[in-house]
Amino acid sequence: MFDLNIYLADGSRWIETALDRLVPPAFTRPDSLHAAMRHSLFAGGKRLRPILCAAAAEACGAPRDAALLPAAAIECLHTYTLIHDDLPCMDDDDLRRGLPTCHKVYGEATALLAGDALQALAFELAARTPVHALDIVRELAAAAGSTGVVGGQVEDMLGEHLPPDESRLRFIQQHKTGDLIVCACRMGVLAAAGPAPALEAATRYASAIGEAFQIADDILNATATAEQLGKAVGTDAAREKTTALSVHGMEGAKRRLQELTGEGLAALSGFPGGTDPLAALARHVASRKN
Amino acid sequence: MFDLNIYLADGSRWIETALDRLVPPAFTRPDSLHAAMRHSLFAGGKRLRPILCAAAAEACGAPRDAALLPAAAIECLHTYTLIHDDLPCMDDDDLRRGLPTCHKVYGEATALLAGDALQALAFELAARTPVHALDIVRELAAAAGSTGVVGGQVEDMLGEHLPPDESRLRFIQQHKTGDLIVCACRMGVLAAAGPAPALEAATRYASAIGEAFQIADDILNATATAEQLGKAVGTDAAREKTTALSVHGMEGAKRRLQELTGEGLAALSGFPGGTDPLAALARHVASRKN
Repeated sequence: MFDLNIYLADGSRWIETALDRLVPPAFTRPDSLHAAMRHSLFAGGKRLRPILCAAAAEACGAPRDAALLPAAAIECLHTYTLIHDDLPCMDDDDLRRGLPTCHKVYGEATALLAGDALQALAFELAARTPVHALDIVRELAAAAGSTGVVGGQVEDMLGEHLPPDESRLRFIQQHKTGDLIVCACRMGVLAAAGPAPALEAATRYASAIGEAFQIADDILNATATAEQLGKAVGTDAAREKTTALSVHGMEGAKRRLQELTGEGLAALSGFPGGTDPLAALARHVASRKN
Repeated sequence: MFDLNIYLADGSRWIETALDRLVPPAFTRPDSLHAAMRHSLFAGGKRLRPILCAAAAEACGAPRDAALLPAAAIECLHTYTLIHDDLPCMDDDDLRRGLPTCHKVYGEATALLAGDALQALAFELAARTPVHALDIVRELAAAAGSTGVVGGQVEDMLGEHLPPDESRLRFIQQHKTGDLIVCACRMGVLAAAGPAPALEAATRYASAIGEAFQIADDILNATATAEQLGKAVGTDAAREKTTALSVHGMEGAKRRLQELTGEGLAALSGFPGGTDPLAALARHVASRKN
């Protein structure tokens, strides 16, 4: 029987061990910069994106380690976006995963630069992938750019204090959250030298669960406690953000979450290898409690 | 006779035309993000790094266009560092090249994200180079990262209000300024499929003129007017920064500038093609007035 909790715990250890080896030690000059990068990288994230990257490689019959470098790259990229999101000129958050945010510990300037360096490191690691490195760099660059995660972040900001707007919601879900999740899965297939249908399956699977992830996030922001999430809650409503709840309401959002899980599971037939982890991850994303 | 002024004007037009084509138009969603990226990209920079990239390709006998994509990439990367440097939590500058800085026009959050997106775009463009794209991405990632330009920026910050320190000065010169200039020249050689000795020559040439560029910058900060530079002057002394002047004094800095120009010129014999532009650029960097 496949046990997702064991798979997640093992995947977290796997990627954290790799990151510890791949990221310059905290005593590398400039010390404060590397300490700040490590503070945010090792602050107990769920490691969903690297685990998805590994699971997509496994679903192509490759060992998890084939996807090690892109998995580390996507976690560096994701972590940089969190550091910059938390800055005072953005969300101005003091807590992330229950710990003080990077700028609360290292100051704004160092946090800004730690994020910048983590983005560069993401590309450095992606470029070191043994197989299909150039395709992997291209996927990462497109997902990271102005029409990817950064564009989604801008629309998310613009959506504050504006009337609910389905087109903006779709843009935010797709780019702010979806693009990195799609990128993680596609890079896993590329690093595993998977066949073209698997690359398409990865896109369909990850688009569905990326949207589901964002909807679950929106629901948790409205219903969970700060202790459960390790960060502030109720912030979306306070900022009148464009979310699945503001556009579809709670019942509509939950219904959409079910549909998307079904879409994600249906896409799995396109992979040549075992998809138990991807299937369990799709169900997990829809039902997560933090 | 080689005319550097014509070469610089022509090179600026060349790279600006390319950037205009390669950067998403300002009406691409999110509009404000693309407008902010373009504001800083088209604010009349000297385009030294892309012109060096092109000149290095030409010194390997290739046409300038062989280096178009890495040249555009290095200018995007350089521009992102300027946007982030100017932010209130860093240097808090209102003027850059005589124009309002990105955050003065678009706000801090959008400026931060415009910088982030320009870094991603730099890697996207580098990865599209027709020849040696993966090597070029690796050069760019190393130069951009925590032991490259970002590391130099951190040490530059740390050097404020501290006693003059030659080891820190060297680190700042090498990484804050030198790494991107070395990267520009090396990417030009790689994109031109130049021979190994040319790659070494590019490193020696660019290390020398990178240091010279930073020394000239330090001298201008102390001696030029704000009108000449299009930005605030006298700021290094006010912040008690670690500069060539604080460590070596004015005469020592000028002497070092002469030595470095000689070193840069001596390296040119390692290129297989014509090096008039690179030679003129080395002299220009040491004697620049803005």
